Amino acid sequence: MADIFIHLESDYNNGAHPVVLRHLCETNDERTQSYGDDHFSLQAKNLIRQACQQLQAEVWFLAGGTQTNATILDCILQPYEGVLCADTAHINVHEAGAVEFTGHKVIALPSHEGKLSCNDLSLWLRSYFADETAEHMVRPGVVYITFPTEMGTLYTADELRALHRLCLDYQLKLYVDGARLAYGLAASEDVTLPLLSELADAFYIGGTKCGALCGEAVVFPHGNVPAHMLSRIKRHGALLAKSRVVGVQFEALFSDGFYFSMGKSAVHLAMRLRRLFVEHLGYAPFIDSPTNQQFYIIPNKDLPTLRRYIGFEVWCPVDADYTACRFVTSWATTDAEIDQLEEIFK
Amino acid sequence: MADIFIHLESDYNNGAHPVVLRHLCETNDERTQSYGDDHFSLQAKNLIRQACQQLQAEVWFLAGGTQTNATILDCILQPYEGVLCADTAHINVHEAGAVEFTGHKVIALPSHEGKLSCNDLSLWLRSYFADETAEHMVRPGVVYITFPTEMGTLYTADELRALHRLCLDYQLKLYVDGARLAYGLAASEDVTLPLLSELADAFYIGGTKCGALCGEAVVFPHGNVPAHMLSRIKRHGALLAKSRVVGVQFEALFSDGFYFSMGKSAVHLAMRLRRLFVEHLGYAPFIDSPTNQQFYIIPNKDLPTLRRYIGFEVWCPVDADYTACRFVTSWATTDAEIDQLEEIFK
Amino acid sequence: MADIFIHLESDYNNGAHPVVLRHLCETNDERTQSYGDDHFSLQAKNLIRQACQQLQAEVWFLAGGTQTNATILDCILQPYEGVLCADTAHINVHEAGAVEFTGHKVIALPSHEGKLSCNDLSLWLRSYFADETAEHMVRPGVVYITFPTEMGTLYTADELRALHRLCLDYQLKLYVDGARLAYGLAASEDVTLPLLSELADAFYIGGTKCGALCGEAVVFPHGNVPAHMLSRIKRHGALLAKSRVVGVQFEALFSDGFYFSMGKSAVHLAMRLRRLFVEHLGYAPFIDSPTNQQFYIIPNKDLPTLRRYIGFEVWCPVDADYTACRFVTSWATTDAEIDQLEEIFK
Amino acid sequence: MADIFIHLESDYNNGAHPVVLRHLCETNDERTQSYGDDHFSLQAKNLIRQACQQLQAEVWFLAGGTQTNATILDCILQPYEGVLCADTAHINVHEAGAVEFTGHKVIALPSHEGKLSCNDLSLWLRSYFADETAEHMVRPGVVYITFPTEMGTLYTADELRALHRLCLDYQLKLYVDGARLAYGLAASEDVTLPLLSELADAFYIGGTKCGALCGEAVVFPHGNVPAHMLSRIKRHGALLAKSRVVGVQFEALFSDGFYFSMGKSAVHLAMRLRRLFVEHLGYAPFIDSPTNQQFYIIPNKDLPTLRRYIGFEVWCPVDADYTACRFVTSWATTDAEIDQLEEIFK
Repeated sequence: MADIFIHLESDYNNGAHPVVLRHLCETNDERTQSYGDDHFSLQAKNLIRQACQQLQAEVWFLAGGTQTNATILDCILQPYEGVLCADTAHINVHEAGAVEFTGHKVIALPSHEGKLSCNDLSLWLRSYFADETAEHMVRPGVVYITFPTEMGTLYTADELRALHRLCLDYQLKLYVDGARLAYGLAASEDVTLPLLSELADAFYIGGTKCGALCGEAVVFPHGNVPAHMLSRIKRHGALLAKSRVVGVQFEALFSDGFYFSMGKSAVHLAMRLRRLFVEHLGYAPFIDSPTNQQFYIIPNKDLPTLRRYIGFEVWCPVDADYTACRFVTSWATTDAEIDQLEEIFK
Repeated sequence: MADIFIHLESDYNNGAHPVVLRHLCETNDERTQSYGDDHFSLQAKNLIRQACQQLQAEVWFLAGGTQTNATILDCILQPYEGVLCADTAHINVHEAGAVEFTGHKVIALPSHEGKLSCNDLSLWLRSYFADETAEHMVRPGVVYITFPTEMGTLYTADELRALHRLCLDYQLKLYVDGARLAYGLAASEDVTLPLLSELADAFYIGGTKCGALCGEAVVFPHGNVPAHMLSRIKRHGALLAKSRVVGVQFEALFSDGFYFSMGKSAVHLAMRLRRLFVEHLGYAPFIDSPTNQQFYIIPNKDLPTLRRYIGFEVWCPVDADYTACRFVTSWATTDAEIDQLEEIFK
Repeated sequence: MADIFIHLESDYNNGAHPVVLRHLCETNDERTQSYGDDHFSLQAKNLIRQACQQLQAEVWFLAGGTQTNATILDCILQPYEGVLCADTAHINVHEAGAVEFTGHKVIALPSHEGKLSCNDLSLWLRSYFADETAEHMVRPGVVYITFPTEMGTLYTADELRALHRLCLDYQLKLYVDGARLAYGLAASEDVTLPLLSELADAFYIGGTKCGALCGEAVVFPHGNVPAHMLSRIKRHGALLAKSRVVGVQFEALFSDGFYFSMGKSAVHLAMRLRRLFVEHLGYAPFIDSPTNQQFYIIPNKDLPTLRRYIGFEVWCPVDADYTACRFVTSWATTDAEIDQLEEIFK
Repeated sequence: MADIFIHLESDYNNGAHPVVLRHLCETNDERTQSYGDDHFSLQAKNLIRQACQQLQAEVWFLAGGTQTNATILDCILQPYEGVLCADTAHINVHEAGAVEFTGHKVIALPSHEGKLSCNDLSLWLRSYFADETAEHMVRPGVVYITFPTEMGTLYTADELRALHRLCLDYQLKLYVDGARLAYGLAASEDVTLPLLSELADAFYIGGTKCGALCGEAVVFPHGNVPAHMLSRIKRHGALLAKSRVVGVQFEALFSDGFYFSMGKSAVHLAMRLRRLFVEHLGYAPFIDSPTNQQFYIIPNKDLPTLRRYIGFEVWCPVDADYTACRFVTSWATTDAEIDQLEEIFK
């Protein structure tokens, strides 16, 4: 068993899912239009519209997550508006100030296991709009959430509906960062892509972390795309000349429900891992995540053994004897790998 | 012969060169680091350093051309500086204001078949630095040129050396946009990658138009990369999580001199096309381009026949009877295709 | 006569017109609201509305000209739009890239003695909107002109109407930089403040160069001010806490037609200077300016004598023997000063 | 006594201090250079250098506070850096996102009666620099504090020295917003202008709230002004053509120690008010402020009586029966006014 080593460091250190790669190969020789007008991209957009159950949806393909957040938020915010989010939000912490680079304030509210609470948001909004000096402050324009969150947690359908209603009340837009959307939808009990499409003003369907080599699909489910979107995207340096490279991949991802089955597989393996860690090894979850990112409180004395067989990330120290660690399954994790871990650790 | 149709519309409406695609497939299953630290990217960087004959060069992989120009120019310009270029320069015309979006003025000088003349530049600089109000004007920081230009033309080694010397004299940086660099190097009589690396402060080696699915390689040949480059790139939304997607492709492109032979093939076919058009069909060149972009003055009466067999772009009307058209070969064009055109048109 | 020296270097090297200063003193002790809600500002806005004959006009007070251009253009442009102007326009040459700092391209067209020609503009617009790649280019959003121009010249009413019509045809906004508006209106034969207010979407009435210590009045004559203007202005750092400092001055400037009579006086003196230079000294005008900025071609041999009695600016060399020089009258120039020049030079 | 009404709403709803206004009048007729090269500005800069005991200091005059913060922070930050401050900081709350407009993140830490604690800052910095993902986060570049704070409180000399040392340790710059500096220096037991000049990398001396019509003086005490500062300031729209309007006022403010005596007078009156409110009326301070901004917890039943005689601002509700209110003295408040209040309320 000495040469077993299972990679659970992250969901973006593989190439593409074989299904995606195969489609890139099959379509490679065909000549197409550029800048998103190729028939692969058009077909991928149709498949996404159908999956969202919003036939009027507008879909755009971009290369990466930070780019997508910064570009789309800048496009849907008025120049004087800011974006509200949890303080753990990717745009607030790990995007090197890309949103601020476009001139907008990120307004961070307290987070609850990665989630923005409707209550906190409601209090903040009431306070902002009651403030006589509000015109001297950054006006809120968009609420940004991640699904699943950076902590692997999920909003329930009711929580999403409540956020949506609050946004309507205050004329804010709801934007969902779906970098790991496949895993979120697979794990959720009541949130579906059609529901998300109904409630969000814009969101993106993650490709990079969900089986593609690169690429994210931005959806304006109600067709409410800002005017001159191609110019806007190009101005942000985010328009791919050979945009089909993303279109082809999303055509594969959204054929035959593949995006969803791939997500389910990763979540299934995450749950197997969870049983192993919690029931057999007695580790406590650091965060109670139902998705492909799993966080456990590991006794420091166990770390060397774990490190021998598993690649994972240290999240943060808990106390002198325990460390929180993150274990991430993906489309590339296999049942056989979890079998091996069970053999070793049971 | 009815079903012959040769695509010469552009060099970015195919997938990837088979050699590149094969390498993507071969490497797909390997787990690697992210954000450019994977060993494919490291190896690709080494191959590029060797090809440039600058072992201290710093190399970064980005997704597309406009993104690269806007990001890198913003990184090497001081905030109060602008970028000088020919008025036909891609950054001045066809990037939707992406450079201005980062806060910098594009200062356009007259172009000569797509080229910036050292004389015009020298006059402008002398005039700027003699102007008592210069501090109220945008200070020049970088000279931007394309190699080959948007018109397919090339600077000679002497012209590049003169621009370089002028930049030194005025403490400006020289930046070269090499979106089609493979074709430029293949066609040039005296400009080599090592020479470019010696003279430029930064340049990029085009992938998207030169055989890759996507991606450009930015080179700081003298190792003079600005501090905290990863943060700067991420702030522009230009850092790919799975950056290896570009690294793998450049590893293929720079193995065994492939980038150069691929460029030579496309230029060879462009020259065959040129002989057909000029010597046999008697068309006058609209611009005298030695590279893969060819421009001819076509009698309008010939357009329908040409359109039957060739995909190409109308560039601009010349007069009532003639139209300038662009024909672009690429790595995807074959000798057999030009053979067929010769058969039809000779 | 040895100690006579007349300052004609510029119109912004004095303090304020005594009428303006007196009003600052008279009103100094009164307590008021801040941020533009003081009654002096409100009254000044009313006076401006009346002078413009546009009672629904919105008026805002800012501190200086470059700030005003950059702030207001950014507010009325869509993010992906640029501003069209003559290549000699202040925003293109002498504002250190302040417009580009806000993310917008300045698109410079040829100038004709400082003016943008309707013909050039029309050709450019036709060409832009016919271009199939237009979405990859910066979309025009605003036409910027100066009245009077940087060369002291004036658009006629017909020229303004033609520009206005062209803007309507192409759904562009017309913005007028009136840094020296008092002198322009005084010199024009047919352009009045009401006409300007009818034709422009936004313009500013210059204070700094027209009798104030500082300050410019921005007018949206048709009440078409962008939403949340106070927030927008503050975001640009252009909101004065004690905004009344500008309001009080404009109250003085727009009481009893003072702004217009002050302009007329400076233009009258410029015309006396012109007669002296052209008719008596035989100098040729470098530009035929009817306003307070006068440009003459001076024999180099005469420069020392002129310099003994007059402060002025060298504009540019004409040839080996002649130099173009600028002489500027202002509200601070007096009939007595021109009398003295006549005595010396006649 | 019916017509007594004392204005304590703010320190920027008057004109200028008579001493300042007089100097504007005295100097009005003199012709000077523009853009800060006039001899009034040069003399004012010298006076400020002497008051700071830093003869190599560089001084620039800008029009207002938000403009100054946004412009100077953008000039001293690297593009990828953010600014650390207390969450109550003016730049975080009441500048409409002007710092973010320039592309920089404002990183807010907890505040303690308006102050940033050295301990919080130290913890944050240690955590940031220990974070393996730091390069994906906004790098801290400047620590921003206000002196006095928005709550009227003051850092002690020891606290400033500790912040300074921490900045040195982490190679951060220390920037002090001195919008109300006159009142802060007057109230502090141990912080002097020379001490501030020794510890800060840049700060501004407030004019608008401290006796001027408008204008702030930016000081780089160690001469460490960024290159091409005039171009940088102009690019931000912050360069006044007739910059002398601020220079003249600061010449008056810094002659004969006037800035300091004016501050002392306002603080003296604030302390008289405090005794009246605390000792005679029994109101508890809401915040223990030693400067010209005073905050008290007022029983709601007393509000009508107070409102009859005093103009003040409601700060926030405390509970059902009490409201926190702000009372601001300034150079315009007089001993006679406080005498009258004492007569009424004692």
